[in-house]
Order: sequence, then structure tokens, then C-alpha cells
Amino acid sequence: MKNFNPIRGTYDYLPKDAKIREQLRQKILASFQNNGYNLISTPIFEHLELLNSSDGGDNLKLMFKTIKRGDKLDLSRPNLTVADIVEEGLRYDLTVPLARFYANNRDKLPTPFKAIQIDNVFRAERPQKGRNRQFMQCDIDVFGDESINAELELLKTALDTYKKIGFNKLSLKINDRRILNQLVVFAGFKQDEISTVCVSLDKLDKISVTGVMMELIEKGMEAEKINKLVDILNDVLDNGLDCVCKYGVKSDDAENIKYLIKNLNALTDCIYDIKFDVSIVRGQGYYTGTVYEFYADGISSAIGGGGRYDKMVGVMTGVDTPAVGVSIGFERVALLIKENGEQDLKQSLALLYDKDDDILEVFKIKNSLMQKYDVSLYIRPKNMKNFYDKIAEVASCVVSVKDHKEGKEIKNLIKI
Amino acid sequence: MKNFNPIRGTYDYLPKDAKIREQLRQKILASFQNNGYNLISTPIFEHLELLNSSDGGDNLKLMFKTIKRGDKLDLSRPNLTVADIVEEGLRYDLTVPLARFYANNRDKLPTPFKAIQIDNVFRAERPQKGRNRQFMQCDIDVFGDESINAELELLKTALDTYKKIGFNKLSLKINDRRILNQLVVFAGFKQDEISTVCVSLDKLDKISVTGVMMELIEKGMEAEKINKLVDILNDVLDNGLDCVCKYGVKSDDAENIKYLIKNLNALTDCIYDIKFDVSIVRGQGYYTGTVYEFYADGISSAIGGGGRYDKMVGVMTGVDTPAVGVSIGFERVALLIKENGEQDLKQSLALLYDKDDDILEVFKIKNSLMQKYDVSLYIRPKNMKNFYDKIAEVASCVVSVKDHKEGKEIKNLIKI
Repeated sequence: MKNFNPIRGTYDYLPKDAKIREQLRQKILASFQNNGYNLISTPIFEHLELLNSSDGGDNLKLMFKTIKRGDKLDLSRPNLTVADIVEEGLRYDLTVPLARFYANNRDKLPTPFKAIQIDNVFRAERPQKGRNRQFMQCDIDVFGDESINAELELLKTALDTYKKIGFNKLSLKINDRRILNQLVVFAGFKQDEISTVCVSLDKLDKISVTGVMMELIEKGMEAEKINKLVDILNDVLDNGLDCVCKYGVKSDDAENIKYLIKNLNALTDCIYDIKFDVSIVRGQGYYTGTVYEFYADGISSAIGGGGRYDKMVGVMTGVDTPAVGVSIGFERVALLIKENGEQDLKQSLALLYDKDDDILEVFKIKNSLMQKYDVSLYIRPKNMKNFYDKIAEVASCVVSVKDHKEGKEIKNLIKI
Repeated sequence: MKNFNPIRGTYDYLPKDAKIREQLRQKILASFQNNGYNLISTPIFEHLELLNSSDGGDNLKLMFKTIKRGDKLDLSRPNLTVADIVEEGLRYDLTVPLARFYANNRDKLPTPFKAIQIDNVFRAERPQKGRNRQFMQCDIDVFGDESINAELELLKTALDTYKKIGFNKLSLKINDRRILNQLVVFAGFKQDEISTVCVSLDKLDKISVTGVMMELIEKGMEAEKINKLVDILNDVLDNGLDCVCKYGVKSDDAENIKYLIKNLNALTDCIYDIKFDVSIVRGQGYYTGTVYEFYADGISSAIGGGGRYDKMVGVMTGVDTPAVGVSIGFERVALLIKENGEQDLKQSLALLYDKDDDILEVFKIKNSLMQKYDVSLYIRPKNMKNFYDKIAEVASCVVSVKDHKEGKEIKNLIKI
């Protein structure tokens, strides 16, 4: 065996990266918990039937599946199909397992139930930068609360959390699928055209209004409707919620978003840029109400998002349950922190000892330093140059037992 | 779909359990880090070639495998074998991935390299109590240090860690495969019989000396050798390290263990029961030196263990690397803590509000309480009895906005 790379599309995390990721995970979790959400955990394996019944779109094609074992696997069977050899699937997101978890345990859970999940999911993406086949998702979801205060607590929690992990400047863009649907219908489109139109609208930020128009024409939509929709959208992009009612949007729907924005601003001392943005669609078909995305300064892709999906749990599990969630883009945030951030990681100290040092004294010194540092013993290496080259992956400073006893200072390792 | 149970052999963790497990994970990790080990992380997927070349024994039979995707999967092929449909395996332990990780990254890592891994592994065990198909392993390993001080730092770290998670009384039983091998050879067995004999000796605590004798006879070993071995073992069980040298054990090997025990006792103020125990074998074939197990008061199975495996990394990766590790039995420890332990979890408060409360005031109260509690908002439910029945899964105390404003005390929920 010569190839020791991790499996294509997956990654090993060396100590520096692993520490950043773990600290990020713990900070996010603590903030979610402090805001009143509850950690749960589900297995990576899921029933194929459930996964296939989910609104997973392309993710279903990217699903990892495990092979049947023992007598259950009969490869000599004629006209073998994939169904004959598959045992179960690996989850491609955390929402499907959460729906199953809730259907299975709702008798033991309060209403509403507010869940935290921070766990790996798996998709057989074509490997490329930023597309991992195993990646961390980081979700809070509320099941069983249809009021806008569910969104208010969720979004306040997300803003708190971003702040705790170092994002002080953020914009939060909020839309509502109900508003969008009404605008699309007002432009003349039929109910069953709404989702096709929304898929194109989702690309507004990438391909602009002209691009969306072209795409809708290609999809065979009528030019008149498209033109009307574009006029409406341009007006709403300029004038926001104040103009939507004249295009048939119920005033309750507009007031809902105003309530959310007003209270979020008040709860966060207006330090964030929080606004209605009709161009926020969120691709997934399952959203039924509010949708939102978080943007950091100077980065064009969202670093988090979510929305309300009041139908999904019912369709999938037969248990009608209003649901709303926020997801923090863990992998993207981890990369940003790695690239830009000063981390307040606890300092790691390499404590060098010599063969003839009294080992009990060595440990006594280690113990005393452990109050301030994470401390690791290293026998003084023969090749100090080589040692210094590599120790920075695991330690931020170094001192020898001898120097420490003589009162010499602990050396900080130059940041590489 | 009617069955919302998790996949057979796996578990959902509800908020109370998930919180205990997460706190345990964080405490163990913090202790490992403070003692100078470095968190790394590898994917759950591994190269089949690597897994199959590992000394995995039965675990290889229990391995989960994923199915090839797209054009790579050709089910119409004649004489189809498992190899034709398999893409990769899921790791069945953390040692195989660590060996690959080290072979792949050793140019970037210091020597010795001290790794922490706390992650899920997967085995298709026949589901029964305590046998999960997905379970957490919790390992520290040192690669590239053949000195006994590697064991000293490892075992000191493990004892520290058990203390931090609540185990104040522990016994640590230490043996050395080199000593065991020399005793077996002295009894007359041949080099190539050693491992067979050791497999039986591993059952000493379960089937006693007589049982081991019976088993060795069944395996076709000569009665004379067996009797001699039993005499030797009985003497060593009674008299410990002081008598091993008369059975051909090198004095260096005995001194090694004495050094370890003496210094561990000194470093832990003799509060633990740390002793040489010739009956500790550890089943795995790959151990080459020290082996050890941790036992908690009143529990017959080990709650952790490990040993030295100086050949494994070389055999598997071609990179000769002395290696030694300790594993804390996360799942067993989590169960014990759940059954017996008082946990010092941060208190969770359910804050009830009424529809006509000022929502900004509600959040202001929530924020002020978040300094002491994890706080979650709940609209005052219509059915208080039902609410109280279920809220205990997620909260340890409850108060309403109205009562709080009137200065009433926060109610602790009766422990269920």
C-alpha cells in the first residue's frame, strides 16, 4: 500500500486545524445551549425508505449506501438490482434524521421542541475545493411552533452565536416564500409554475434580472408574465415591504416580516444590517414561509441560512408539525476563521527534558505549568532544527526543564 | 413509512443523554489536551485495501462497506463478486486511520507525535445490549517514542482524566507481553505457539486457571507444558514481579514495569491501586510490550485499556514506528455516569411567557437569566400538566415571566 491520502473528497485534520474546528464547534454549541436549544444526536445510518421519501433532490443521487452482509447478499441472483444489494443509506443532511427522531420520540419531548444538531453528513460530491464528501452541519430547529416568535428566538440565537465566534459585522437578509408566491401569482403565473419560477429567481444574485428573464423564457414561460414579474421585483427591490401589498400580498405576511426585523434590531442594538430582501429564495422545495441568509462582510456567499418548512415533517412522517430552522455554515466559517482569525486557543507548551532529569521533578514542573498551558513532554531531541520545524504544528511555545528551573522565560514559537 | 426507530443496532440520543455524552466528551478532551496530546480527525471512510491489511481479526467481518456509484457499478457483469460492488469501508476502529494519517503526514508532525482521537467507529455487530453498531472511541496514542516514559505520561494522563470525569477509585492492572512471552517459552511452548496460548490466557479472569488448562488441552497443547505454565502463573499471580526472573524473564523487562508503577504511584499520591497483573493479556494480536486495563470499583469489566504495538504501523504502512496507546471506554463510562452520576450540568431554565407579554421585555429577562442558566422561551401552554410531564427532558427548572417580575423563585423540576 503506497497511497496514504484520505479517501478522495475527504480530509484529515492536523492538530492546528482540528483544534480550530473543535473550538468552533464548542463555541457554537455553548451559544445554542445558552439560548435554550437542546443537543440531540442520531446515527449516521438511516432507513433507505425514509431517505428516498425525503425532498432531497440531487442529494438523493449523491447518497452513500452500505452493502448487505452475510446471507442477505446474494450476488448470484438473476437480474440483480441495486435494491438487492443495498442495506441502508448514510444521511445526506440532518433534517431528515431530525424528522424521524421527532416522529419516534415526540411523546417524550415538550412542544415546541428545540433541537441542536452538530454532526457530519455525507454526500458523494465530485471532489473539488470546498466540496467535501464528509462535512459538518450545524443546525437548530424548532418543531411544533408556528408563531413568528420561533423565528425571532432562532435568529437572535444565530446572531448571538456568530458574534461569539468573531463575526461582529453581519447582514441578515429575510424573505418569505408566501410573499414571493403571491408576487409570482400576481404577475400571472399559475400555482404549479411557482416552484419553477422560484428556482430561477434563486439565481438573481448570480445572474441578475436579465439572466433570470432569459432562463424563464428558455423554460417556456410567457414573456408578458415575465415582464410583469420583473417590474414587480424591481419595485420591491427598491421599495421593500412598503410596496408589496399593492401586488396582492396579504398585509399580515408583510407585517410578520416587519415585526421580525423591528424586534431583531431592538434585541441586537441595531448593530447588524437586517433587511427584507425579495431575492432570497433558498433553493430547497420544502420551504413554506420565512427564508433567510446571513452574509459576512466582503464574502459573497452566505455563511448560514434557513427557513420555515411547515409541510415537510408531515409529508415524510405522517405527523403534521410546523418546523423552522437555522443552519450555520460550519465548513465555510471554519475556513474563514482559519484564514483570517486570531484564535484565542489555550497555549500549548512543549516541555523538553533530558535523560538524566529526575522524571518525578519533570512531571512536577509539567503539572505546575498545566494550570496555564496545555503541556506535553518531549525528550530533548538530537536535531533541534528539525524539531523546531515541526513542533509548531502542535505547540505554541517551548521551554526546557533546565531553563525553567533557572528561571528563564518560556519561548514563543514564531507563527508559521 | 411506519417505523421511525433508528436503524437496528444504533441509537438516538435524547437531550438528557446527549448532554451527558457531550459533557463527558468535552471533559475527556480537555484533560487529554491539558496533558499535552493533540486532537486530530480523520474521515469515517477508509481505503478497503488498508482496512483489509490491518490486524482487525473479527472486526474485518463486521465492516460496513459502501456501494460503488454510477458507471463504476455494473451489476450485469457475470460472476459478480463483492469486490466488484464495493467502493470503500467504514473504519472499525481509530488505530487504522491513525496509522494511515501518520504515514501520510509524518513530515509535518513532530517526533514523538501524541494524538487524541474521539470519534465514532462502526461495526455490524449483532445488536444486543451494549453492542452498538455506531459507537464512540476515545484514544490517545504516541507514535515514535519507544521509552517507558511514553507509557508513564499516557497512564498519568488517563488517571487524571478518569478523576476529572468522576472516578476517584480505580485500579490499574499492568502487564507486559514480553514478560508473558518469556514465561510461556520458559514453560516449554514454541515461539509460534505463544499467540495461541495468549488467546486462552486472556480468558483467565473469566474461566479461571482450570478453564484455561482445559482450553489449551483442547487446542492440542502438551499437558506437561500446560502444567508447568500453570505452576509458573500461580507463582507469579502470588508473588508478582519479584519472582519472574527465575522463569527466564529479562530483569530489564521486570524493572520497566516496576519503574512505571513506582512513578505512577508517586505522581498520583498512591490513591489508586496500581499493580502488575500477569493475567492481563488484551486479546489483540498486535500488542508487543506493555498492556494495561483500568477497572472501576464494583464493575467487573474494564473501563479502559491499551498497550504498546511497536510493529503494527510498520506492517500496515511500511513506516516502522514504535507506538503505544490508551483508550477510555467511552460508551461504558457514559452508561455508568448516566446510571450513577450526579452531573454538574449547567441548569436549563424554561421561561414561560404569555401572548400579551411585551416580547422585548421577555427577551430582556431571558438575556439576564442566560448568565446563570441556559434559557429557552415557551409560550404558556394550555395544558400545564402535559407540559410539566415533558419539559423535564430538556429543562431542570421553570419560571414564568409574570412570576419572575413579581420576584417569585425559580422552581426546580422534580428529578425523574
